[in-house]
Amino acid sequence: MDMPHEMLSAPSAVLMEKMVMGGSAILRDDDSLLRTVFFSVLRHHHPNLARKVDVIYALAQAWVSSGEDSDFDMLEKYLSGLKPEESILVASAFSHMLNLHNLTEDVSSSEREHAIRLGEVEAPTRTTNRSLINLTTNKGVSPEALYKQLCEQQVDLVLTAHPTQALRGSLLKKYASIREELASLHTKRLTKYEKIECLEAIKAYVQGAWRTDEIRRQKPTPQDEMRGGMAYMNSVIFNMIPIFHRRIDTALANLGQPRIPLDHSLFKFGSWMGGDRDGNPNVTSTVTRDVCVLARLEAANAYFNVIESLMFDLSIWRASPELKEFAEAIANKDSRDAARIREERKMRNYSDFWVPATVTEPFRVVLAEMRDRLYTTREVLRQCLVHPKMNVGAVLLERGAYSHISELWEPMKLMYDSLIQTGDTALANAKVLDVLRQMSTFELSMMRLDVRQESTRHTEVVDCITTYLGLGSYAEWDEATRVEFLLKELQSKRPLFPPGMDMSPDVKEVVDTMRVLAELPSDSLGAYVISMARTASDVLAVVLLQRECGVKDILRVAPLFETLDDLTNAPATMTTLLSNDWYRSHIKGMQECMIGYSDSGKDAGRLSAAWSLFEAQEKIVAIAKEYNVKMVLFHGRGGTVGRGGGPTHLAIRSQPAGTIQGCLRVTVQGEIIEQQFGEPEVCFSTFDRYTSAVLEAVMDPPPSPKETWISTMHQMSNISCEQYRAIVFKHKDFVPYFNKATPVSELGGLNIGSRPAKRKAGGGVETLRAIPWIFAWTQTRMHLPVWLGLGEALQDAIDKGQLPVLKEMYEEWPFFQGTIDLVEMVLAKADPSISMLYEKMLVPSELSYMGELIRSKLMIAKKAVLTVSGKSCLLQEGTGSESKKMAQAADLEVKIALRAPYVAPLNILQCICLRTLREFEEKGEAAGGGYNPTDPEILDLLSRDPNKNPTTVQPIVAAMYDALLITIKGVAAGMQNTG
Amino acid sequence: MDMPHEMLSAPSAVLMEKMVMGGSAILRDDDSLLRTVFFSVLRHHHPNLARKVDVIYALAQAWVSSGEDSDFDMLEKYLSGLKPEESILVASAFSHMLNLHNLTEDVSSSEREHAIRLGEVEAPTRTTNRSLINLTTNKGVSPEALYKQLCEQQVDLVLTAHPTQALRGSLLKKYASIREELASLHTKRLTKYEKIECLEAIKAYVQGAWRTDEIRRQKPTPQDEMRGGMAYMNSVIFNMIPIFHRRIDTALANLGQPRIPLDHSLFKFGSWMGGDRDGNPNVTSTVTRDVCVLARLEAANAYFNVIESLMFDLSIWRASPELKEFAEAIANKDSRDAARIREERKMRNYSDFWVPATVTEPFRVVLAEMRDRLYTTREVLRQCLVHPKMNVGAVLLERGAYSHISELWEPMKLMYDSLIQTGDTALANAKVLDVLRQMSTFELSMMRLDVRQESTRHTEVVDCITTYLGLGSYAEWDEATRVEFLLKELQSKRPLFPPGMDMSPDVKEVVDTMRVLAELPSDSLGAYVISMARTASDVLAVVLLQRECGVKDILRVAPLFETLDDLTNAPATMTTLLSNDWYRSHIKGMQECMIGYSDSGKDAGRLSAAWSLFEAQEKIVAIAKEYNVKMVLFHGRGGTVGRGGGPTHLAIRSQPAGTIQGCLRVTVQGEIIEQQFGEPEVCFSTFDRYTSAVLEAVMDPPPSPKETWISTMHQMSNISCEQYRAIVFKHKDFVPYFNKATPVSELGGLNIGSRPAKRKAGGGVETLRAIPWIFAWTQTRMHLPVWLGLGEALQDAIDKGQLPVLKEMYEEWPFFQGTIDLVEMVLAKADPSISMLYEKMLVPSELSYMGELIRSKLMIAKKAVLTVSGKSCLLQEGTGSESKKMAQAADLEVKIALRAPYVAPLNILQCICLRTLREFEEKGEAAGGGYNPTDPEILDLLSRDPNKNPTTVQPIVAAMYDALLITIKGVAAGMQNTG
Repeated sequence: MDMPHEMLSAPSAVLMEKMVMGGSAILRDDDSLLRTVFFSVLRHHHPNLARKVDVIYALAQAWVSSGEDSDFDMLEKYLSGLKPEESILVASAFSHMLNLHNLTEDVSSSEREHAIRLGEVEAPTRTTNRSLINLTTNKGVSPEALYKQLCEQQVDLVLTAHPTQALRGSLLKKYASIREELASLHTKRLTKYEKIECLEAIKAYVQGAWRTDEIRRQKPTPQDEMRGGMAYMNSVIFNMIPIFHRRIDTALANLGQPRIPLDHSLFKFGSWMGGDRDGNPNVTSTVTRDVCVLARLEAANAYFNVIESLMFDLSIWRASPELKEFAEAIANKDSRDAARIREERKMRNYSDFWVPATVTEPFRVVLAEMRDRLYTTREVLRQCLVHPKMNVGAVLLERGAYSHISELWEPMKLMYDSLIQTGDTALANAKVLDVLRQMSTFELSMMRLDVRQESTRHTEVVDCITTYLGLGSYAEWDEATRVEFLLKELQSKRPLFPPGMDMSPDVKEVVDTMRVLAELPSDSLGAYVISMARTASDVLAVVLLQRECGVKDILRVAPLFETLDDLTNAPATMTTLLSNDWYRSHIKGMQECMIGYSDSGKDAGRLSAAWSLFEAQEKIVAIAKEYNVKMVLFHGRGGTVGRGGGPTHLAIRSQPAGTIQGCLRVTVQGEIIEQQFGEPEVCFSTFDRYTSAVLEAVMDPPPSPKETWISTMHQMSNISCEQYRAIVFKHKDFVPYFNKATPVSELGGLNIGSRPAKRKAGGGVETLRAIPWIFAWTQTRMHLPVWLGLGEALQDAIDKGQLPVLKEMYEEWPFFQGTIDLVEMVLAKADPSISMLYEKMLVPSELSYMGELIRSKLMIAKKAVLTVSGKSCLLQEGTGSESKKMAQAADLEVKIALRAPYVAPLNILQCICLRTLREFEEKGEAAGGGYNPTDPEILDLLSRDPNKNPTTVQPIVAAMYDALLITIKGVAAGMQNTG
Repeated sequence: MDMPHEMLSAPSAVLMEKMVMGGSAILRDDDSLLRTVFFSVLRHHHPNLARKVDVIYALAQAWVSSGEDSDFDMLEKYLSGLKPEESILVASAFSHMLNLHNLTEDVSSSEREHAIRLGEVEAPTRTTNRSLINLTTNKGVSPEALYKQLCEQQVDLVLTAHPTQALRGSLLKKYASIREELASLHTKRLTKYEKIECLEAIKAYVQGAWRTDEIRRQKPTPQDEMRGGMAYMNSVIFNMIPIFHRRIDTALANLGQPRIPLDHSLFKFGSWMGGDRDGNPNVTSTVTRDVCVLARLEAANAYFNVIESLMFDLSIWRASPELKEFAEAIANKDSRDAARIREERKMRNYSDFWVPATVTEPFRVVLAEMRDRLYTTREVLRQCLVHPKMNVGAVLLERGAYSHISELWEPMKLMYDSLIQTGDTALANAKVLDVLRQMSTFELSMMRLDVRQESTRHTEVVDCITTYLGLGSYAEWDEATRVEFLLKELQSKRPLFPPGMDMSPDVKEVVDTMRVLAELPSDSLGAYVISMARTASDVLAVVLLQRECGVKDILRVAPLFETLDDLTNAPATMTTLLSNDWYRSHIKGMQECMIGYSDSGKDAGRLSAAWSLFEAQEKIVAIAKEYNVKMVLFHGRGGTVGRGGGPTHLAIRSQPAGTIQGCLRVTVQGEIIEQQFGEPEVCFSTFDRYTSAVLEAVMDPPPSPKETWISTMHQMSNISCEQYRAIVFKHKDFVPYFNKATPVSELGGLNIGSRPAKRKAGGGVETLRAIPWIFAWTQTRMHLPVWLGLGEALQDAIDKGQLPVLKEMYEEWPFFQGTIDLVEMVLAKADPSISMLYEKMLVPSELSYMGELIRSKLMIAKKAVLTVSGKSCLLQEGTGSESKKMAQAADLEVKIALRAPYVAPLNILQCICLRTLREFEEKGEAAGGGYNPTDPEILDLLSRDPNKNPTTVQPIVAAMYDALLITIKGVAAGMQNTG
């Protein structure tokens, strides 16, 4: 009989308790529904295998809940006993179950749980509404002040294609369809037949997914990526924007405030897809042009459909005098050549309203006219796609197409005012209002494209010019002469660009891109981002090159300071720029800087990266204020740890006070687009979180850091940086250990993203891109890049008796708190026992002390984090005031636990595959264990990869390789995050 | 205290009882929901008016339920007290309330009531499933026989634009949207916000409808009509066909039968819109060409979308050997010029899959190829629209577009078989099966166009040729020489058509049409229908003209015998044709004849029209059987009395036995398309009714008529014909009475349909088209054309002691029963008290004896119908065997009663308007009562009509005229039927 239950390992018991209490687990029948459907598909195609999966699942559960080695060994032995082709399918089965499981999480996402448990409001307009009430009643902010703030605030979401779009498009699609069917199972009242059809549809999708090859066999193109993003714009975002504004208006009405002005939108959208050429040679000038034209085409298309459906609704005959006059002007123009117009509409096969409407239907006269121009706009843009030489901006103008949103906006506004005047308020505030909201958000470009290029490429171009003109080699000048030269050129009217100068292909590509920017309409473009920006000349060079290549509306230039050094002397760079009168007048009092720390995290560790970022922001904003220039900080959110949700609030609160002055620019990564905008309901609450986060950041800013905090951060930042580098760069056995204990060297085969994995081949960590570096440690559940060095820094501060300061910093400083909590979440997911498994099976014994060393540092980090946050164990119910984020933590714990039985078998299988593959590389033939299947079905299974199939490699290698790739995806899905 | 309640007038008490019993009335909250919404809109815009409408409604209800004059006078007095502009709005208010009320009927349509009351099956697949069970278990038909029958049977639905599309498109649209919102109110589980938004959407639509001008101010074009029909094809029918077949397959599976063969469809679709030029000069040859090209364009579009969504689903890598081979062939072709293909797809901006798929995704390779060809097909067809001269058939071939469905079908079938082979049955029977069903139903033309032309037009053409060739004047030859001449020409190869012959515009138009038919692909065309067909030469002439104008696949020629005389000697005409060897070989053993009786009803009365039709069908079919030619009877269903539903079953059962041999061709009228196919659920049960009706007509045919029945019908048919003509054509006071007692002379202003109202101007009834003739009597609730003459015929038979025979005919002969029941339904709706109102206010006293005469004939008809059907009052629960149709009758009674409070005020208002307008015509100025509004709002209201507004006529006339038109539409909606 087991002892009374106090003694169980604490987290899982508490966890169990929670699961049974909250209503959620019991109603988690989606999960079991999908699992049953999946099993029936599995049983249908592979009855034997299904049984094995069943036993593996039960054994995995037994181990997850007991943590005993005896259960682990039963599981490990069972998995090692699988035949190679079985391990492919078992891996695939668990990967599918995991994805299906995640799906059910999306559907009953944790927010809903959260709301039910505390008995709060159930309506989706939660956070903004709450922060409105919170700010007015608790913080005593007046509704007028709130309204004023909302009228100035804007969040600019920049969609970027990111590297690890792990799941294939077609699988993503199927899962999205399953999610829809599940949702309609819940919300619709279905007759029996419909319910059965719904379940059969789910079955068809699950089967389709199961029979689809999980591994993407070749690389996506930039246009593919852009399409992926664009699809969400059309299907979800375009329609949810007006609905969101509608609910905000309702909330404002409840506070006795008017609705948000029609020509102001709370959101704008940008894109990097097809503009980001940093280290991606596939992004050429034609690609950039294509994506801009495509985006405008989508916008024209969307408005076309909206205008057409308005033609049905606005069939009323009363109108205001202004509208009547406007409509008569059009009607007279039409009636002059009515026949020609009818002919034209006929061949455009409009769904109807061929015949020009008469002034007794004034709205239709105006709308029909708008529809014709939109049709023309579409045609012109299509031509531009076909003839890369056509000048987009010019053609739009001369063909009478729409080239600026105001031409669309005025007639629409006129109709709105008319409806209000004639008392048709209900009609005015129905679809007409929605269209006006869409126009002020998406304009004619849908989303504005940023261009991103590395600073050295511009240096080459200017150098090419100065050598050609015999002014010497720009590349060898020091910074001062460069700045002096560039400023002189910028202030003189003389053309600098010599015609007929011959250029290397790299230089030519930069120049071509600039020329393309010159011909595109400016409202299709956003900022020009310089990656690896170091000095002021990097910025000025781009301004000069744009002018030289004929860009009329010169794009605002946003430097991206990536490495630690660039960050530390970013303020100096800014001073040089802003102290120059010409430059200040050129930027019209607004300068944008981009900050993101994926690279800096790689070479200095998370803490010092975060801190130097924090400092850089403060200084940069302070300098801008000196020259009273408004500084906009563009955040590259590296899809940081943890699921979308939480950190938006967290991330925004932990920015230095005053750096978010009412408008936020931030990137949204590839598969985060799917999570945050894939579903209307979730898309809605994404808008909601951003709005309320910015609202609070402005109306209730976080406190500024005290002197003691800053000095403590300095000292900790240095120590963590040393410690981090001591291990990663200086320790002789780290790299060999890294290559053995993680699948980093096998990651190449994943075809993740359109850009190449390594900068230059061979060598240590510094040659790795940030992505694979983080990805590799995620697979083994160590997440080393996140916490390495932090433990020692905290411990050192504690040893110097600064614990009270640390606690104070944790309690009152959102930045420090955010950093610690993020690390805590990662630590909660770190699972040493899994990584020891990798070590036991893959690392030669003389290197395993490295594992010991790393795990001991992990324990130091854990203890330090716990001491600072004053919790007795990770993710515990803190005593802290804000109860919301705690629940989130507990929620994450539940999530990890629910996925564990799916992820554990995948990790074990991964080790088995890595061991077999590496043995094979060393011993060649012998290791294959004479695995030579003759069954055609098996051979088919093994030969789905164009360059790793039984004709090119040993069957055992093909099998283990596929299984490996599948487990990597599975574990990633289990960790649901990337670098 | 009132006497015990036996003494009340019987029908309304019984009616009351029923209303409370059946659960429906209590839950009829949609009705009150819409009424409340409407009132709030009304109150918002016209508070005073709303009150008056409220009192009028209460007074109307009091009268409807008491039938006492005191209540009627209170109502009539109140209505006469309205100011002219008020009567416009009151009329409009009741018209809207009536339409909204009808809407709720649609939603909770009577079928559902029917099913609940008898506790029958609730699933939508009712009638077919029931008839399947009924035929197998009760009639002992074996499932195999049923299956065989279903595999041969086909219903061909021909959509025609009909004349009284009473409601304007935009109002129809709004009501359809309201219906959707109501339905989602019932089926979806909505959060509070969504429910409120749903209600606000309803409010916005009701308001939009209220503020829209009800009266259509100008004529629709044929293409408009075709679009209307086409819209239902895309939005509803295209998607419901596969779902219907799926449910039939399930029902068959329950009987242990396989699914219906993939290449057989239970339904085909045809169209007259843009092909029917009978008396409609707007239908020209270009129009015909346009609608055919448009239909193909729609089909290409529909398949394009389907194929694209399949590209996402079929991402699996396993395939059958045949498919693999097929896919490789395509992939090799693609890979040869991969670059060109990518370029092309790029500029077609496909949503994605630009890059050619590899053979590891065989399905996508095949689908991508199909998508390209469909894109080409679309482009080619667009060109054809733009260049009227392009030869459609030829261009499709040379551009590699799809010109025959088999090219689309084979690859699709190949993929289906592949999925079955690899065990992916769930995938095969999901979307792939649906697409195959759509292909076998709609092919590449979506629906086939019939051409309809009057016989005399062809006579002119042949005459023009013979005179030109100096062969004499064809028009003056007698029938025998014509037939001899035509047959000689048809069997000789010599061209007859002289080039450069000059033709009158009418002749040229016929020739142009024939040439267009020659260039269109034959699968876009159906039958060539000759209206007013009299003799065999009418048919042969068309065959000849087609050949002479180069029509390769000569269209089957279907004569339409309209008048009584043509019907009586239709058999002789058929004998002449079918006895000719050449003709029989030409028609390949299948002859189609069209029968419809709208005109014959007008000049001989309903009974003799129905009877002579019945006889004609029997004889024609018998003659065809002699020459063993399969005769297809094409039914022009004149949207007969009563709402869609019922009569399909009834109408099909009352066809002579054996005339429906497994395939039915029938027309569906304009606004019946809306009713039968507007909503997916209703569309479904329409398919269902047709299928089961045909199934039963074949497997369980009605009995053939006995000798005594035939002789009785003869005698009755003659008497009713005499009586009918005695009144309508010979009675000197009938026409004057008709013009006074109905709004027939004011109907012109309605702009109903694209064809002109009168054949030639002035004169009596025979110059009227059938439509206005019936429509006028419907307005006054007399429905005279339906029953006139029938009473005397029945009474005469009863007086001759033939009552037992009549009862026998009613009991056992579906034809006679159907005829009597249809008349009974109309009689139940006839309301003498309303028509007496028209008389009292509009007919001079020396003509009112005509009213007496007509009403007395009505009573004779009522008594006779009751005696024959053995009921004690109209629509009573018959003792008859089939209980289903009785309930329907009671149902109709409930419906009439529920609408009565809305319709009565409209009728009274109509009389008031007619009286004022006619007084005005006689007395000119004085009658206007000096009505001279100065309020601009009122003037706006009065000047919505381009040629009847205060600037062109007296304000009183403009007001009364608008109000009149609105009441006419309202009453029509109340009677919900047309001619």
